[in-house]
Amino acid sequence: MKITGLKVHLLEWERPPHHWRDGLPAGGPKGRETFLRILTDEGVEGHSTHWGDANIEELKWKLVGRDPLRIEEIWQDLWRNLRSSTFGGAIDSVDVALWDMMGKVTGQPVYRLLGGARNRLPAYASTLTLDSIKEFLDLADDVLSRGYKAINLHAWGRVQDDADLFRALRKHVGDDIVLMYDASSMFTYEDALYLGHVLEDLNYYWYEEPMDHLNLTALARLADALTIPLAVAEATVGGPFNALDHIMAGAADIILTDPILKMKGGFTGVMKTAHICEAFGMQCAIHGWMIPCLHVACAIPNSRYFESLQPEGFFIPPGMHTASTEIAPDGTVGPWEKPGLGMEIDWKWIDSHTIRTIE
Amino acid sequence: MKITGLKVHLLEWERPPHHWRDGLPAGGPKGRETFLRILTDEGVEGHSTHWGDANIEELKWKLVGRDPLRIEEIWQDLWRNLRSSTFGGAIDSVDVALWDMMGKVTGQPVYRLLGGARNRLPAYASTLTLDSIKEFLDLADDVLSRGYKAINLHAWGRVQDDADLFRALRKHVGDDIVLMYDASSMFTYEDALYLGHVLEDLNYYWYEEPMDHLNLTALARLADALTIPLAVAEATVGGPFNALDHIMAGAADIILTDPILKMKGGFTGVMKTAHICEAFGMQCAIHGWMIPCLHVACAIPNSRYFESLQPEGFFIPPGMHTASTEIAPDGTVGPWEKPGLGMEIDWKWIDSHTIRTIE
Repeated sequence: MKITGLKVHLLEWERPPHHWRDGLPAGGPKGRETFLRILTDEGVEGHSTHWGDANIEELKWKLVGRDPLRIEEIWQDLWRNLRSSTFGGAIDSVDVALWDMMGKVTGQPVYRLLGGARNRLPAYASTLTLDSIKEFLDLADDVLSRGYKAINLHAWGRVQDDADLFRALRKHVGDDIVLMYDASSMFTYEDALYLGHVLEDLNYYWYEEPMDHLNLTALARLADALTIPLAVAEATVGGPFNALDHIMAGAADIILTDPILKMKGGFTGVMKTAHICEAFGMQCAIHGWMIPCLHVACAIPNSRYFESLQPEGFFIPPGMHTASTEIAPDGTVGPWEKPGLGMEIDWKWIDSHTIRTIE
Repeated sequence: MKITGLKVHLLEWERPPHHWRDGLPAGGPKGRETFLRILTDEGVEGHSTHWGDANIEELKWKLVGRDPLRIEEIWQDLWRNLRSSTFGGAIDSVDVALWDMMGKVTGQPVYRLLGGARNRLPAYASTLTLDSIKEFLDLADDVLSRGYKAINLHAWGRVQDDADLFRALRKHVGDDIVLMYDASSMFTYEDALYLGHVLEDLNYYWYEEPMDHLNLTALARLADALTIPLAVAEATVGGPFNALDHIMAGAADIILTDPILKMKGGFTGVMKTAHICEAFGMQCAIHGWMIPCLHVACAIPNSRYFESLQPEGFFIPPGMHTASTEIAPDGTVGPWEKPGLGMEIDWKWIDSHTIRTIE
């Protein structure tokens, strides 16, 4: 079996405007995603979605003619040449697409091939940044009524407003609901420390990306001053090795990683990361709501929750139906028992929402 | 004075094919560069070249209407929002263009505004990867005859071939020439250790990027085992804060940084990096052969050499004439005493080699 080519669809569709914390650009009214197809001489395709730019000619130079099932060999080749940003942006999506292909060839869902620690796990409701405390409380009512038992806030990044929201939400949902907060890499040390103490007093479960994500030294200083677990390493590149650097620097209590974002190395990189974290007795929490995130979160034992962005499916191309948005009444979610990633692709939708193909 | 807009020219021109070490994609026969212009209501423009992608709409959202001379304020805004890759790819070029504008407004060359530790410094000849040892030795003869007293090798990344080249070059040039080696982030620990000992025996001056640049922990292990200075942090993102992380991890002997590449933060980021290095008694070596690199290398006291890629000007758009390729007979180089970066721009060349403009 040989890789014969790559095909990339740049997809665009209507999506409501949205925003994150102050300072970050708003999104919408178009959704955009890059859909990667790895083609073979036996007709089996591996699929993934893609972050970052990639030069398709350079990727073909690396991949065409190779056996797609020698995944670690291909991974090592791409990883050792990550200085080229082309491979950096592509290593995640290439690896995920190859594991999708391995699943299709073997007839197994990816989560089983990667270990299959369990077949479902609890989801946490992860918010967009809403406009008022009332909107956050209404959303909490909605998700709790649908079975969720954990909520992760993306708030404004304004110290007092965010602290007010933490207090209002804890009071509103009571003590039995798990609450988390994602600061999206913004605060100065003093502000991060203040908010960390507020979160500790309110028994929040984790404090995600409190400060500049590119500064382990300052993050370690904060980790030393706080008792609430810091969930970090989501926005940095470097996958398992960068995760180890966070741990060795004393900057992490929980490692956040993602199979399809930020040069984490796809499934292969996340599995290495999970094993390093396990050896340190540490959680390897999976960021993201796409189907690859669900597979690997079920595959490994040290990921406690699946991130479910609200409303479910907000960033997912409508023509790619998967299990990742199907939250059961008990608040759990699990991959379908279908080969590979288990994506039901509506090819008519893909065709009509492809603004450009590259191959 | 207000920023009124941005204009980006995507430039393309004929350039000979070339390659780096094994595993990295070859380049040419086209040269490509992105030329950034920051426009103001007073007609003064700030110029820079640009690495990585950037969403011009999001950059305009950050910049238009602001005072371009409040550089640190703009820098902090972009840096604190680097989670968006748009700003990540752009922070260097925006900052360099704003300092170019500051120079034009004040009538000073940038190297003076940034400190002006001296007005020239020695250049080292930095090679492309050539095809044979003989070609490297011939190049050495050429550059030494033109005044250079230091040579940095980009070799094949094959352990024995590279070691043979190290020995042949040392024997060829004698003991008084400074030699360096750039491994471009590739070797496993054992191979990196072996080559490090070879370099030590031959009295090479530095050992650049010996291993995976995304792994401080392993790099610190190597630094501990070798006496030759490791020059690192060139290919990682995160600028001054990442440089500090390298130092704190024990992974660096010399910090390599660059004002226009890899989210180092432009001149503002490099100055912070240089100051951190100075406090640790460490060199802050400037990577790169473009004119911004020359200005900042002269501005700071703890950069010993300027990197001059051979042949001079290889990657520089021919329509942008600057001082960075003018090596004096004594092997030194320095910026022109012109305001800003001192770029003589051939606008006819720019127009005829612009394949697309974005504004």
